[in-house]
Amino acid sequence: MGKAALLACDWGTTNLRAWTLDAEGRVVAHREFDLGVSRLEPGEAARRFESEVQPAFGAQGLPAILCGMVGSNLGWTVAPYADCPVGLDELAACLAPVAAHAAWARIVPGVRSEGIAGAPDVMRGEETQLMGWLAEHPDRRSGRRVICHPGTHAKWMLVEDGRLVRFVTAMTGELFAVLGKHSVLKSDAAADDTSAFDAGLAAAGEGDALAARLFTARSRVVGGGAPAESTPSYLSGLLIGAEVAATPRLLGVSPDEPVVLLGDEMLCRLYARALAGRGVAHETFDGEAAAVAGLFALYRLGAAR
Amino acid sequence: MGKAALLACDWGTTNLRAWTLDAEGRVVAHREFDLGVSRLEPGEAARRFESEVQPAFGAQGLPAILCGMVGSNLGWTVAPYADCPVGLDELAACLAPVAAHAAWARIVPGVRSEGIAGAPDVMRGEETQLMGWLAEHPDRRSGRRVICHPGTHAKWMLVEDGRLVRFVTAMTGELFAVLGKHSVLKSDAAADDTSAFDAGLAAAGEGDALAARLFTARSRVVGGGAPAESTPSYLSGLLIGAEVAATPRLLGVSPDEPVVLLGDEMLCRLYARALAGRGVAHETFDGEAAAVAGLFALYRLGAAR
Repeated sequence: MGKAALLACDWGTTNLRAWTLDAEGRVVAHREFDLGVSRLEPGEAARRFESEVQPAFGAQGLPAILCGMVGSNLGWTVAPYADCPVGLDELAACLAPVAAHAAWARIVPGVRSEGIAGAPDVMRGEETQLMGWLAEHPDRRSGRRVICHPGTHAKWMLVEDGRLVRFVTAMTGELFAVLGKHSVLKSDAAADDTSAFDAGLAAAGEGDALAARLFTARSRVVGGGAPAESTPSYLSGLLIGAEVAATPRLLGVSPDEPVVLLGDEMLCRLYARALAGRGVAHETFDGEAAAVAGLFALYRLGAAR
Repeated sequence: MGKAALLACDWGTTNLRAWTLDAEGRVVAHREFDLGVSRLEPGEAARRFESEVQPAFGAQGLPAILCGMVGSNLGWTVAPYADCPVGLDELAACLAPVAAHAAWARIVPGVRSEGIAGAPDVMRGEETQLMGWLAEHPDRRSGRRVICHPGTHAKWMLVEDGRLVRFVTAMTGELFAVLGKHSVLKSDAAADDTSAFDAGLAAAGEGDALAARLFTARSRVVGGGAPAESTPSYLSGLLIGAEVAATPRLLGVSPDEPVVLLGDEMLCRLYARALAGRGVAHETFDGEAAAVAGLFALYRLGAAR
């Protein structure tokens, strides 16, 4: 491991993950900051970056590359969306410079897709993980792949020959959170009951009529005597099962097509279980490692321009 | 209009609607009380009924019939569910007596259906409106009908020859409430923008992949420049459109089958617009009048036993 040559940040809505990388892209140091852009005042991002993030690594003079919501109007500088289809080179060509910053510093643009129902879909941050995953092995940059990034707003991405062709967002994680906290399905119990999760998967059907299928999470308790503390696991299985069953078609691919899961390990494990239950082939990759790889690849291409 | 002969109550989770009826079932007086069972302490229902509801009408000596959540474990006395298929006579045969009450007083049982995914579905209150609607015209008691009762937990009911054969609940109203208050789609704006409602209907597709379609309510604003204050109307159209498209199939009927809308006038108007957009024939009937007719019909049959 060499000396730190780059400060790389994934700066999202709720927190900031930062790494220093050496000249080969290997992680030198890693820190997390409680600095999500949703908590920042206008103009605060630059100040906090300079007064907290850089000094924490002793990285004041290093070039920096940042991705995520830091490039939105809630963040530091707006990095306008790149439109699909887009690959690594194209994304590196439109990194947004950070105003009035001494060293080389750029923000990765978000990506916009045609979306569904005439509403263009958007992402900020997941594109960098995707590009990192593609950059890690050259053979991933040929052929066609369906990639799912689970989360509050899960992204289903279609990649052809290394370019993100289009994507669809499913707000599954947010539905789970708001229903579990604010609806008749609310519960403080942990979502750790595998058989209730599987019952939820089975109740998801083909992902149709979700508002009706969701009520089974209530009626299985009130009308069927299931234990109320199994509701969070059942709800999780129902929502993930419905997403996995129905979203591929919206993306324009078959629900049988193999899926690459890229993201948080725990969440990917739940999606893997849902896919396995449907007989869909899948492989899982770590989202954080992909984010680091993506930031480094974009830096190398962007700084060389 | 004759003299009051019966005190009839629709006592739900959030409020209590009560009427005195004459010997022919005509309304003598009507009052609403801020006494939903969700606000009652155990054992409080009897006391509040005797100290507030009866005296408000001077109805202390009258027979009484009550429907709704007052028959649940949150209410006064548990009136065990009647199982589908069930008609007016069968429901009247299992009214639950209210313990230690001087005059004749009964609670209408809720109804339980086979449901979907092995979770028995349940209702309390809507069955009385349905029975009232069926009782109002003898010709409604032959043939097959699909009845939709919109609400927080909308009910889709299949009736054959005057008997409720099965039903499915869709928690559309609750999704609208929690997403509009607690999610990234939250807004204080009124849901009064017809063209945004229609855009939501169009985005509902066939009611598949709801978690993804819901995100269009966000992305049309962030990625497409639609005004944020149109979000509640769009969300309403999207959720109602998805329910209307997908729930009939879960009920085991064709989505083209004519629908009877029974319930709140404003809400029925939105559902009527969604059905009209899909070319589905529909008629609308007032839920409150049906509740009164149902309580009276059940009283007449029940008291005669």
